[in-house]
Amino acid sequence: MTVHARRLGRWSGALAGALVATAVAAQQAPPLEVPAKSVPVPADVSPQMAKIVGAPLRTNWNIQPRTGEEWKPVAEAGAAALRKLVPGMLERLKVGIEPTTIDGVRAYIVTPKDIAPENRDRVLVHVHGGCYVLNPGEAGLPEAIFMAGFGRFKVISVDYRMPPEATYPAAHDDAMTVWKAVTRTTDPKKTAIFGTSAGGALTLAMVLRAKREGLPLPAAIAPGTPMSDTTKVGDSFVTNAMLDNVLVSPDGFCDAGAKVYANGHDLKDPMLSPVYGDMHGFPPTILTTGTRDLLLSNTVRVHRKLREAGVEAFLQVGEGQSHAHYIRDDTAPETKAVFEEIAQFFDRHLAR
Amino acid sequence: MTVHARRLGRWSGALAGALVATAVAAQQAPPLEVPAKSVPVPADVSPQMAKIVGAPLRTNWNIQPRTGEEWKPVAEAGAAALRKLVPGMLERLKVGIEPTTIDGVRAYIVTPKDIAPENRDRVLVHVHGGCYVLNPGEAGLPEAIFMAGFGRFKVISVDYRMPPEATYPAAHDDAMTVWKAVTRTTDPKKTAIFGTSAGGALTLAMVLRAKREGLPLPAAIAPGTPMSDTTKVGDSFVTNAMLDNVLVSPDGFCDAGAKVYANGHDLKDPMLSPVYGDMHGFPPTILTTGTRDLLLSNTVRVHRKLREAGVEAFLQVGEGQSHAHYIRDDTAPETKAVFEEIAQFFDRHLAR
Repeated sequence: MTVHARRLGRWSGALAGALVATAVAAQQAPPLEVPAKSVPVPADVSPQMAKIVGAPLRTNWNIQPRTGEEWKPVAEAGAAALRKLVPGMLERLKVGIEPTTIDGVRAYIVTPKDIAPENRDRVLVHVHGGCYVLNPGEAGLPEAIFMAGFGRFKVISVDYRMPPEATYPAAHDDAMTVWKAVTRTTDPKKTAIFGTSAGGALTLAMVLRAKREGLPLPAAIAPGTPMSDTTKVGDSFVTNAMLDNVLVSPDGFCDAGAKVYANGHDLKDPMLSPVYGDMHGFPPTILTTGTRDLLLSNTVRVHRKLREAGVEAFLQVGEGQSHAHYIRDDTAPETKAVFEEIAQFFDRHLAR
Repeated sequence: MTVHARRLGRWSGALAGALVATAVAAQQAPPLEVPAKSVPVPADVSPQMAKIVGAPLRTNWNIQPRTGEEWKPVAEAGAAALRKLVPGMLERLKVGIEPTTIDGVRAYIVTPKDIAPENRDRVLVHVHGGCYVLNPGEAGLPEAIFMAGFGRFKVISVDYRMPPEATYPAAHDDAMTVWKAVTRTTDPKKTAIFGTSAGGALTLAMVLRAKREGLPLPAAIAPGTPMSDTTKVGDSFVTNAMLDNVLVSPDGFCDAGAKVYANGHDLKDPMLSPVYGDMHGFPPTILTTGTRDLLLSNTVRVHRKLREAGVEAFLQVGEGQSHAHYIRDDTAPETKAVFEEIAQFFDRHLAR
């Protein structure tokens, strides 16, 4: 290091220090005191979405199971309820599912009865959400079924290991195992990866890891309302708290689940908080969130980071929707709109 | 109409009725009671933006002047404060301004010292915001200056008539007069229209009117957080009330201003609530808003309507930002990011 560079370094350090000090000063402005409000269901959403938006806050949103064993019955109960909805979805969307194992990893092949001709050689990889502790087995499939049905794509959905079976990096490892297997048989230019919530974070983490490991990248990705920051940074963690009827609060069940999966691993690691990852070279990305989403900020922050890295990145935000409302009811026109938007995006970016 | 079609029609009517009934039922679900909160400035914004985000609610946000004469001193006071900031902006961004008159309409030519070579033959038309009653003269120029400076485009900013000088459709007429003049001397394929808030609504209304009158359309538009619905429909009117420190409330000054401009004209007319307009055939559109913006919903609703009409439409949402925070401080990196995004979008869509 030359003397000049050292001086510059010192000066930059001082400047950075001053900037941080200013930021801290401004950010220590007194918080805004927002009064209590009575929030009606918006008038400009469909009847189906109105039902979802108008539902009360999730029951037991503030449970905090601290071990995989404590999570298991919670996950089982949720999964039992979700599994019952799957047959109706399959019938309405004309989709079939088949459990399989790919290089030792549990997965489902999700296939529309009528694959679009342009999608014949394309494969999408899906990683479900659920705070890394929920939605095992068929309970993880609704989003994959919606994508297969609305987009007429073949989807492989990873039923990755979760606590108590295994902790970090098991889900990541399983997703990567499936990714590697897919790219051995399908041209990566004809593939995409998608997922919502923890699945959105996994989607981003898979690209970060593929970059790091020199593996092929997909032609596009669709992280939906990704858990891109598990360190609780993000304005909507506060502004949409007690308004988002799904996640409800940054101090609720979801963060507790992520912590159990992390099992002591640094939450700021881009594998668990991908907003801190280097997004240069990412494939075209479509992001989905809602105006009431607790992760609205974590979605728009990823969007901005991608754009700053020069990545083509498209953002869609659902009116009145809380976290992942778009993967609830396939009969809601808002759901169809989200998945058709993603399908069009994939169609534009995937080779045929 | 055949008997069959008539039957189908009746059935559809009944179905539509049932859907509306369901919607009303769902939308009459009890409102969500969101408790009071203390909202700190987010940690993930620049020091400059932290200062803007952390400012208290706008003074006198709840004034309701009912005539143009009552608005005049309010507009004058605001304009005097804003005008003082203009010289600094011009200097920092290396932009010059020149007042002019175009076919009888007051306007400013806003020119960067160094027009980008690819922009030599391109012209942008700007319509300022301010609830149709604020920001006369130079006070309407910051956004035009930012666009000229960051994008190195030549901009013509319309200093349209407002109450008490004139009411609806005077601002619209003035904007169209300038638009027609510009398209007489510049290939419309080399032009774009942009503006924020009321200026965002005017941008959309100009395209609707150009379509209706068979005039040429611009090659792209950038409505920023448009007042696309002056009938108070939109979820964020409630969810971001008392959080957005600029507009603060749907029952604040801004709606009062729009009403005075409307002067009894139907607020649901797409000229004043362009979200209800037919957006088929619109040029590529880039929309800007923020997570705390009272018009977040009105921006994302326009985005969805455009996409449903098959229009290329890009949405950017600023972390923690209230209404139009991105046109405050040209030294904030968030401001630069917004205008560079718009400039890139224009560059992609405008002929050279």
